[in-house]
Amino acid sequence: MSVKQKGSKAERELLHMFWSKNFATIRSAGSGSMKYPGPDLIVSNKARVLAIECKSTKKKKQYLDRHDFEQLKEFCDIFGAEPWFAVKFARKDWLFLSLEDIEKTENGYVIDSKVAERRGLLLEEVIK
Amino acid sequence: MSVKQKGSKAERELLHMFWSKNFATIRSAGSGSMKYPGPDLIVSNKARVLAIECKSTKKKKQYLDRHDFEQLKEFCDIFGAEPWFAVKFARKDWLFLSLEDIEKTENGYVIDSKVAERRGLLLEEVIK
Repeated sequence: MSVKQKGSKAERELLHMFWSKNFATIRSAGSGSMKYPGPDLIVSNKARVLAIECKSTKKKKQYLDRHDFEQLKEFCDIFGAEPWFAVKFARKDWLFLSLEDIEKTENGYVIDSKVAERRGLLLEEVIK
Repeated sequence: MSVKQKGSKAERELLHMFWSKNFATIRSAGSGSMKYPGPDLIVSNKARVLAIECKSTKKKKQYLDRHDFEQLKEFCDIFGAEPWFAVKFARKDWLFLSLEDIEKTENGYVIDSKVAERRGLLLEEVIK
């Protein structure tokens, strides 16, 4: 599977999880290839609207470039949504991190698996 | 161009129009091919959230099957969005119709170009 296919698979996995919790969910077409900001998923149950960027990795750290981070924030400001990063480390559950819980590096941002386990929320915790 | 490619082109055209009006817009991946309900576009500026099904035709009438119509309504009820059909007849502007302005047929629904011109709204009118 290509990186793109793996990304789509991870997004679809989360999409199924949110629908199973009665959150209507849309996966964005061409997220990352358009000139506009936008998340991988947009999720809502009327009361909450979440814009989610999904990352799945076999490494211990997930690096984010500054653009990834800032375009999500920009989108959320216009659309009216909560910005979240969902990250899946190998053999772990999906964890959700809000922007303030993500560490800055010199050139961008990083989500460390240990930090994610401490600060991240499970899907059930995000939507409760 | 295939029917699918023409559909994507029409959706992207509307996406650009909404972004130019400062509405954050997402085009759905695999709309119509998933088991979940969902629109072609989801559009919001915080105050308004629109779920839009896009149709472009060279004919004088745009038929909709019952599923098209009902799945949009179902999605909107869960997500919390206004359901709209956007239709583009040849050499005309995009017109937006709400569900109650769309005529029922024996097996589904139809948007007649003359009815659309009378009842439909231009993009500027929808978002004002």
